[in-house]
Formats: sequence, C-alpha cells, structure tokens
Amino acid sequence: MTQQTIPKIQKAIIFEKNGDPLVYKDIPVPTPAPNELLIHVLYSGDWPLATKSPLVGGHEGAGVVVGMGSAVKNWKLGDLAGIKWLNGSCMNCEFCMHGDEPNCAHADLSGYTHDGSFQQYATADAVQAGRIPAGTNLSEIAPILCAGVTAYKAIKTAELKPGDWCCISGSGGGLGTLAIQFAKAMGLRVIGIDGGAGKEKLCLDLGAEKYIDFTKTKDIVKDVIAATDGGPHAVINVSVSERAIDASVNYVRPTGTVVLVGLPAGAVCKSEVFSQVVRSVKIKGSYVGNRCDTAEAIDFYVRGLVKSPIKVIGLSELPMVYDLMEKGEILGRYVVDTSR
Amino acid sequence: MTQQTIPKIQKAIIFEKNGDPLVYKDIPVPTPAPNELLIHVLYSGDWPLATKSPLVGGHEGAGVVVGMGSAVKNWKLGDLAGIKWLNGSCMNCEFCMHGDEPNCAHADLSGYTHDGSFQQYATADAVQAGRIPAGTNLSEIAPILCAGVTAYKAIKTAELKPGDWCCISGSGGGLGTLAIQFAKAMGLRVIGIDGGAGKEKLCLDLGAEKYIDFTKTKDIVKDVIAATDGGPHAVINVSVSERAIDASVNYVRPTGTVVLVGLPAGAVCKSEVFSQVVRSVKIKGSYVGNRCDTAEAIDFYVRGLVKSPIKVIGLSELPMVYDLMEKGEILGRYVVDTSR
Amino acid sequence: MTQQTIPKIQKAIIFEKNGDPLVYKDIPVPTPAPNELLIHVLYSGDWPLATKSPLVGGHEGAGVVVGMGSAVKNWKLGDLAGIKWLNGSCMNCEFCMHGDEPNCAHADLSGYTHDGSFQQYATADAVQAGRIPAGTNLSEIAPILCAGVTAYKAIKTAELKPGDWCCISGSGGGLGTLAIQFAKAMGLRVIGIDGGAGKEKLCLDLGAEKYIDFTKTKDIVKDVIAATDGGPHAVINVSVSERAIDASVNYVRPTGTVVLVGLPAGAVCKSEVFSQVVRSVKIKGSYVGNRCDTAEAIDFYVRGLVKSPIKVIGLSELPMVYDLMEKGEILGRYVVDTSR
Amino acid sequence: MTQQTIPKIQKAIIFEKNGDPLVYKDIPVPTPAPNELLIHVLYSGDWPLATKSPLVGGHEGAGVVVGMGSAVKNWKLGDLAGIKWLNGSCMNCEFCMHGDEPNCAHADLSGYTHDGSFQQYATADAVQAGRIPAGTNLSEIAPILCAGVTAYKAIKTAELKPGDWCCISGSGGGLGTLAIQFAKAMGLRVIGIDGGAGKEKLCLDLGAEKYIDFTKTKDIVKDVIAATDGGPHAVINVSVSERAIDASVNYVRPTGTVVLVGLPAGAVCKSEVFSQVVRSVKIKGSYVGNRCDTAEAIDFYVRGLVKSPIKVIGLSELPMVYDLMEKGEILGRYVVDTSR
Repeated sequence: MTQQTIPKIQKAIIFEKNGDPLVYKDIPVPTPAPNELLIHVLYSGDWPLATKSPLVGGHEGAGVVVGMGSAVKNWKLGDLAGIKWLNGSCMNCEFCMHGDEPNCAHADLSGYTHDGSFQQYATADAVQAGRIPAGTNLSEIAPILCAGVTAYKAIKTAELKPGDWCCISGSGGGLGTLAIQFAKAMGLRVIGIDGGAGKEKLCLDLGAEKYIDFTKTKDIVKDVIAATDGGPHAVINVSVSERAIDASVNYVRPTGTVVLVGLPAGAVCKSEVFSQVVRSVKIKGSYVGNRCDTAEAIDFYVRGLVKSPIKVIGLSELPMVYDLMEKGEILGRYVVDTSR
Repeated sequence: MTQQTIPKIQKAIIFEKNGDPLVYKDIPVPTPAPNELLIHVLYSGDWPLATKSPLVGGHEGAGVVVGMGSAVKNWKLGDLAGIKWLNGSCMNCEFCMHGDEPNCAHADLSGYTHDGSFQQYATADAVQAGRIPAGTNLSEIAPILCAGVTAYKAIKTAELKPGDWCCISGSGGGLGTLAIQFAKAMGLRVIGIDGGAGKEKLCLDLGAEKYIDFTKTKDIVKDVIAATDGGPHAVINVSVSERAIDASVNYVRPTGTVVLVGLPAGAVCKSEVFSQVVRSVKIKGSYVGNRCDTAEAIDFYVRGLVKSPIKVIGLSELPMVYDLMEKGEILGRYVVDTSR
Repeated sequence: MTQQTIPKIQKAIIFEKNGDPLVYKDIPVPTPAPNELLIHVLYSGDWPLATKSPLVGGHEGAGVVVGMGSAVKNWKLGDLAGIKWLNGSCMNCEFCMHGDEPNCAHADLSGYTHDGSFQQYATADAVQAGRIPAGTNLSEIAPILCAGVTAYKAIKTAELKPGDWCCISGSGGGLGTLAIQFAKAMGLRVIGIDGGAGKEKLCLDLGAEKYIDFTKTKDIVKDVIAATDGGPHAVINVSVSERAIDASVNYVRPTGTVVLVGLPAGAVCKSEVFSQVVRSVKIKGSYVGNRCDTAEAIDFYVRGLVKSPIKVIGLSELPMVYDLMEKGEILGRYVVDTSR
Repeated sequence: MTQQTIPKIQKAIIFEKNGDPLVYKDIPVPTPAPNELLIHVLYSGDWPLATKSPLVGGHEGAGVVVGMGSAVKNWKLGDLAGIKWLNGSCMNCEFCMHGDEPNCAHADLSGYTHDGSFQQYATADAVQAGRIPAGTNLSEIAPILCAGVTAYKAIKTAELKPGDWCCISGSGGGLGTLAIQFAKAMGLRVIGIDGGAGKEKLCLDLGAEKYIDFTKTKDIVKDVIAATDGGPHAVINVSVSERAIDASVNYVRPTGTVVLVGLPAGAVCKSEVFSQVVRSVKIKGSYVGNRCDTAEAIDFYVRGLVKSPIKVIGLSELPMVYDLMEKGEILGRYVVDTSR
C-alpha cells in the first residue's frame, strides 16, 4: 500500500447498533484493502440506513486520495475522489459485465454494508470511486455523487432525444431540482409538476419551460397533455406520491416512458393493461448510477450546467441535525464538513 | 386505376349493425381509393369487432392484387398481398414518422373502421399491405399477418440478444405457440408456461427448452427463476390472466423486461415501486406490428421457421363457426376460404 | 382534389435541357396527383442539378398548401409546408419501412426527377412534405429544409450523448454553421475546424467551445486530440477536403465515429485497417434526412435554437445570381422570393 | 491469498528476448497479485508476439483456479477459468466504464505484456478472466477464448437482427468457420466467401446458406448482391485480403455495415465518399471482445452451438510446431496440452 502520512485516529459518527443514537467519537482510521483507495473525506452527505453494526453512516462524500491498496490502477495520491452509495461490486458477474453494477448480488454499499462517509478517512473500491477533477468545489459536489447521479441516471433511462418533452413529477424537491437542470443540459424540454409556495418560480428559474401546480389543477392528466402538445415523451417520478405515479402512466405520451425512481414506502404502480398495450407505454425502474453515469454527472456539474445549493454543518453537529430532521424542521440539503 | 377483369358483385359476411347476426350475402366489389390496392382475398381470418355499420369483418387476409389506385407505387397486378388489422395510417404524423403507425390517431382498422377480409374482394392501403412472396401458401399465412406479427413484435419489444432466456406466459395457446417459434428462430432460449393436458409436449416440440405447468407448481416465481438460472431476461405475457402478469413482474430477471401484449378485459398490472426500482425492471406494452414487423414475420414464415397449423372452412360456414365459438366448442385456429 | 382558387399560369425558372441557360418564364401550374399537395411556394432555395428535361430546379422551398389530392391525409388547405430534396418515396420497400426513405430505389427528387421549388406552385408528396408550424418565417426556414436537415441528420448519425465532444470539420461554411448550432442545442460540446479570416469568431459566436484554424496548425491530429482531451467522440465532415477527411479518421477518439456528409468530387476516404480495428473506430456515411429528421430540425429552428442568415432575391434574378456563383462572387446563402 | 497446494516450479515455453528461439524449460510458478487468480492451465493456444522479455507467450488458455489474491471477489478454488488476450485493464477509465476494456490505455495483454498461457500455472486478473462452467471440455474451449470471442464480437458490432444476411469474407479459415457458426446461432442468414478446394462444403456444412468462391466469380460485387437479394446487411471481413475488403464496401447492402476485424499487414480500407454517403454505409473496426462478449461466446460453445475442431500437442512439442508453421506446413488449429 502506498500512502501519505495519515493519523491513526479520526473523528466519526457511529451507530453502535440499529436504532441507537448517533455518536460523534474517535475511531481508528481504516486500512484500505488491495483494491481500495483511502480517501480523506472533506465533505459528506445523506441519510443513514443502519444494518452493519457498529456502522459509520454516510452515502456520499468527497475528498482526497491519501492511500492506495497494492492492486489499485490508474489513481495517484492527491487525486480527488468521490464515495458513493455503491462502494464496490464484484465486476465479474453478469450484471457488472453489462454495466449494471448496482444490481450486483455482491454490491457493497456505503453507510450500509461498508463504513460510509461520516468519518474523516474512509475506504472505497478504486473501480467504483468517482473521479473528481482537480480544483472542484468538494462541498458542492457531495450531493451530486448521490442525488445528482440518481436523477441523471433516471433521465438516461428514459432514452429521450434532444427536443423531447421530459416531465419531472416532484420537480421542486431535492432530486427534482437536480433533474430539471440535467434534463435541460441534455437538450430536453422540461415541464415540472409540484405544489406549494415558491416552487413554480424555482422550477422555471432552473430551466423548466412549463410548470403545473398539482394543488391547483382539476385534471392533471388533461393539463399535462395540453401543455406538452400530446403528453411528455417521458416522466421522471421523483415524487413519493403513489397517486402522482399512477397519473403519470396516463399522461405520458403514447410510446413514451414512465420512469420510477423515487421510493414511496409500500407504493404500487398500477397500469391498465389494455391502455398500456394500445398506447405502447413503457414503465421502467431506475436505480442508482453506474461508473459512467457518475462520471457524466460529475462532468455536467464541473462544466457549470448543474448547481447544487447546500448548507454546510460540522460532523459533530450531525446528531443535532438528525433530531431536527425527525421533527421536520429542516429545509434544503445539508453537507457535512468532517473537519469540525 | 389499373385493374384486371373483376366481378361487380361478391360474397361477404356482413353485420348490419353491432350485435346483429352475421349474414353471408352478395355485396358490391369495392373500388380502391388512389392509395389503395384491391385484393382478391383467398384466405381470411380472425374475430369480429363491429363499430362501423354495416361492416364486413375480418382482421387478416391473404390474396392477389387485382386492382390498384392511381397513386400506388411499387406494386403490380398479380402480386400477393396481405391485409392486416392496421389497414392504413396517415404516414405523416409523429407516430407514423417513427414507425409507430399502430399508434397513429388516424389509423384505419380492418374489420373495424374499414371493411375487412371476410369478403372476396377487399381494399387495403398500398403502404400498409403486407408483401407476400410469390408461391407462398396463402391459407397458412393468413394467421401470420395478425397473430404472428403481434407475437413477433412483442418479442422484438423485449430487446433481447441471442442466447437470452425468453419466457412465454401462455405458451400453449394461439399466440403462444407462434411466439415460441419466433423466439427460437431469433436465437433465444425459450421457457414456456401454461397448464392443461398436452401443452407441455406441444411447447417442447415447438422449441421450448423448459416448460412449467402453472397448475402443478407451488411457487411459480421460484420455479421460473430456478429454471432459467436467475429469471428470464424477458417475459412475453400472451396469457390473459391478471395473476400471471403480476407474477411475471416478480420472476423476470433483474434489469429484464416484462412485455404486456395479451388483453385481459379490465386487467391491471401491479408492480411494487421499491422492487421495480431496485431490480431495475421494465414493463412495456406492445401493440400490433408495423410495416417492418410484418415483413420480417412473413419472412420467418416463408423460410419455414414458423409453422401455423390451421383448419380451413368456407366463408359461408362462418356464422355457424361463430356459434360454436360462443359455446366454447372450437379448438385451434380457423382460416376462411372465401371461394365457398 | 380539394383546392383553393389558384391561377392556371405561373412564373418559373426552367432548364430546357441539361446545360441550357436558366430561363424565367410562364409555365402551367401543375395538378397534384392523389397523394400530393399543391404548395404555393413563397421562398425557395438551393442549387440546380438537371436530368429530367425540361426541368424546374430547386431542392428546397416553403409555402402554403393550396390544393390536395384525394388520397391526402392529415393536411388541410392553408397549412404551411416545406418541399425538400426527397420529394416522395414508395413507403413500402425495405428502406422506406426502416425510415431510410432517402435510400428508396423509387425516390423522387425535387429539382432532379420532380419539378422543384423554382416555381410559384409546386407539387410535393403529402407524406414527405415538411410540416411547418403556423406563423413561421418562411424565408428563413427554406435552407433548414435542405442544409439544416442534412447537418442535423449527420449529427444524429454519430449517435452521441449530451456532453460528448462533436467536431465540425468545415465549421465556418453553410452546412458547418448550421451543424454547430444543432450540436450545441443537442447538449454536445463543439469544436470547430476551418480556415480563413473571421471564421474563428463566427464559430465561437455560434456556440463552438473550441476552434482550430487548420491553416495555422502544424499537426492537426495532435491539436484536435489535445483540445478535446483525447479526441472528439465524433467528427462531422462537412468540409470538401479529402485531406481533412483522412485526418479525421486519425484524430477521432478511440471507439468514436467519423461521419461523412460533404461530397467532395471523386474523393476517397482512406483508413488503415490495423488502426481502425485496434482503435475500434466507426466511419459512417450520412445522406439526407427522413421525415423525422425534417420534423425535428424544423422544431429546433422554430424554438429559436438554430438561426439561418439569408439574403433574399427575386425568382427573376436567379439566372444572374447563378452567373455570379459560377464566377465565385457569391458569399452566404441566397433564398428566392418567387413573387418577383 | 487463498490457494491449493501447488508446486514451486513448472514447465513453460520462454522467449529470452524478441527473436530468440522458443525454449521449453523450468521456471518458477508465479504468485498472483491481490486482484489475480492463479490458474492451473491445462490447455493453451495461439501465436506468440514478444515484447516483454523474457516472456511466456500464449494468448488463450483454459484451466482450474488454484490460487486467488486477497482482493478477488466471486471466484472460488476449483472454478474453471479462461485466460484471454486482454488479461486485465484498469476498469476505471472512460473506455473501461463503457465496456470498451480492450481500448483501455492500461490494458495488460497475455503473452505480450503479461506472461501468457504457455506455462502450467499462469496468473490472470479476476475481473477479466473468463468464467467456464464446470464440466466443460477445456481443450476445445481454448480457441473460443480468443478466435471465438473475436469472431462473435465482430458479428455483434454489425448490429444485425435475426433474419438479416451476414456475409463472412474469408469464411473457410479459422476465424471464418467460427463466425459462420456464431452467426447462424444468432438467427442470421449466412453467406460465405472463400476460395480453394473443400471450402464450399465446409462452409455449407457449418451453416452457411450460400457460398461464393472468389476464385471462380467474374464479378464478386454483382454475385454477392444477387445471392442476397440486394447485398448482405453486414460483411465480417476476417479475410486478410485488402482487395476483398474494398469489394465488401461495394457489395454491402445500402444502410449496411462493413466490419473490419482481420489485420492484413499495412492494409488500407478505401471507400468512395460519394457512394458511402448516398448508400449510407457504415465501416466499423471491431477489436477483441470484452467481459460480456467472452461470457456470451463461451455460453454458445457450452450449449453446443459452436464447434471448435482442434489437434492437441504437448507443450514440449511447441517449438517444433512453430518451425512447421513458419514453413507453412500446418493446417487447422493446434491446442497445447501443458502437462507434457
């Protein structure tokens, strides 16, 4: 292993076991396996899902390569690297071979089966780690590595061509605002759907050409079809409303594509068989991105085509922020500065 | 219009209005519009759906070109031609431009909005009419033009590659037996699902590599996954069972495709959003074929790769056969000889 | 045939036979065939290629539908319509079925085998005629229907994804300036190559991110590769230099695509087999657009994403302009106003 | 590293430096790197290309996993594994991300930059090693791993659909006979081109539907077009004749694809630009297969759809066989048994 001088002990947020409170404490700096990078995480993000215990949470993070296992190729110390939900996969099963690494049965998941980004030094498989160009703002790019890639992959899954209409259902939220920007940068025409004060202006400012407030329309299917001259060629369902998903199957353009990407708990997508056949509609599940999707999403961000507004907090403040989050008193996207 | 000597009066099966009995009687031979062929129908097939009244039913037929409108290109008298469900379309809307002619808002449908193939002389748009090579057996090809093309198109919709597993749910029926043969000719590995005596042997004889009798399995999802080493890459749902469709969403391979093509009355396809996303499954509606699908399906038949067993009856016997059909006393596929 | 009141006699530019001078004279207004529109051409464009004689030249034109054959579907009097190089095709051969209508053996070509747009009233097949939205500027759209569609189709042929590098070789000319704009609107990163004063500024102003003056570089292959961090993912060769084409095979990115679309007389594209195999490079010929390409190119223009600067002259002035063109004294793109 | 009891010393064929004679001698058994398998090679194949020195040659081999580096995932001791030309790649550059691993700038090549399969124990990257099902005949599969995958990949590169015509130029040779069988198993119609006694029967027996002897035809372009009703949809050039390649550009069907895969020394593929544009022809270089191509080619072999006739010699006999090969006295494909 090649590595820079690094400490033995670091700060991290730990769950001792599932359901336990988050604790900010000292833990050992991990040693990278032969296939892994050791990344000095500077900024980190996202929610915890605990199974491994004790676990360091954190699904997305950005930092600097400070160590490398002996089998690592094509990286060097000092490179900027991103940690993402899919920390590593086997790379030799049928799914990995087709670029469907998120579907690998041996997928290793950050903050879930692999200690995540809520620590100062974290390990990541060198094949899956995201390559970040030198000079990139690491705090802003953290959310791109998870929410951004997910939104971008969902739009790619729709297989649209420039000039097609892309509807973002739930366009005013975290995934939605990113999806608007990616879709616009890909040459698509965007119609946003959401509800609530300020959402319309937000979506139009980010590049949506049309906007529909679902709280104000009497017939969402009719209104979306009218606004897009026959229905959008695809709908990206980042909304977590089952009703919104079912509507999207009906307003999508004939021969068009409904993409499922948000994960409303227990939701079922229902489609009338006769209508889906005669209208030749496709309904596709889109999970998280693979290596290509990640590299491409980062590139859009680096070229300034996608913005990712954030608020930065210290790692030590994370337990308190979770408390606020549970009370619903949090707005916007937080990124964690691991240095404090 | 160029045409051979043809009679003024012909025999046809007519519905005076929806719900009326079928009547075998003399009607005038139609005159082709400038864009149409006049086809001397020799063999005809399929079920009636009445809306236009009076209506000549019949969705699929095969015969000889005996007349041509003045704007017809690339056909000559004596060519063999097929009539299909999609009799004609506008060819200049966005759907026609993309080869999605069945989705054209101006689609003209045989035996529905356009007098069909249950007559001795029928008209068909020269662009949509199927081109049949000289020397082809016209009685056997009639079902290829509707059921065959529909089965073939459904398999194409799955976007498989040779060597992939293709499951035919409902493999022992009319569409299913055709689907098995097309899938095999396309280099796919076929697993059939059906129930009832004799279905297993039929499916294996036609080229299925595996077969599952749904009446005998305790866990269809588990058994299909086991038989295909992880689930079929696609499922073609020609079955009209809603329960069978819902199961297919669960046993299809991750990243695989469920194709809806059968039309169970009132059925709804239900998919758990979380599972569809994480498994990255696609659910696609496949309607009838376009010009390419038709030409390709005919070519598979002509090359002897797809057989279409039929029983021939006279046009005058059709009303009697419909009575038997309503009583459920009909097995197999009937083709109508319009000459008697 | 449905039609508005229209004159019997009109003005046109005629070649009596190949090589003869162009004559501005009165000729009869044509009668549309059953499948044709009669279009009152308001603006017309492009070069003459004579074979049919006498011939009315003109490959592209825009006007108003004033008559329709009896078999025309989905058009109405007063619609705006475009005439293009591919006036009509059979729509039922294998090429037409696949959307490759320009490759139809029965293709009917405007200003070549079919009287073209250098007349006040011209006929066009209703299936191939371009649909132009009400309110569109007809003088500016004329060149979109030929040069624009050709440039757009060439870029589509490259099968790029948003964010890829697209090189336009010959970016400062008529096709090139359109190609830059289309590529940018499709989310691509554009590098232009051309030579001569003012070309760099022109290309950058239209949306190119990089520009290389081939008259100033010592090693075009090296410079293009450096500017695009490994070579462009595709090269659109609108240049008519054989040497430029050969260079493009060498600077295109590994696994990338060289598109041939310009037609340098007698040119041969040469590729070292070993290099093309090991670099996995594709070389594709791109001809003119089909119905989809035309509709999409028009849509980009109508949405303001592609500009088409022109100079308007009267139809009667056309012979004089051809004289200037032969002397090389013409700069830019001329559009003909058929009313004078 | 996990491994079975294995010897310290093994037999191998070594080049001390480029141009030196091949020597059969004892060398140490290598130790796998963390990302590598140690494979007990039982059968090995193919030609030597020396650069690294000293070098163990051999591009393709099949054997048993007897050791594994600590970072290897999804393999276990006793698994059967194949070594191929592409021994390993970085898996995180843009080419690897797109499944174009053979184009990786860090590609590690067996028998070229990495000691190859002409030894009893060889190392191979666990991600790139081919997975071979238990029970497979390892002597016959050795050539599938190089020639077979190359032929298969070339056909995939043509992007045909079942029922299309696929021409194999050079169909009677080592790559050609494999290509015929793969094409047929993929549902394609095959036309072979070759010359010399016995080639016609060989090609037809393997599944070609048509055959043309280029030594007997007066006009190869005309004859191929006639035999395939308009030209093959693709041509796979495994022949090493430059003239044959140039002809293929002219007889391929309009909109069709010419695939370059054979590597005639110094050859240039020449295409008239005008003709390639108007006929919309594609010319694609196809290099060796990636992980998917390898797994799929192995699967076709294992299912009995592709045969690979071989003669087995002992590793110690290899130097003698090379001598015969240089004298042109070798026919057919030899596989090396490393045990003697």
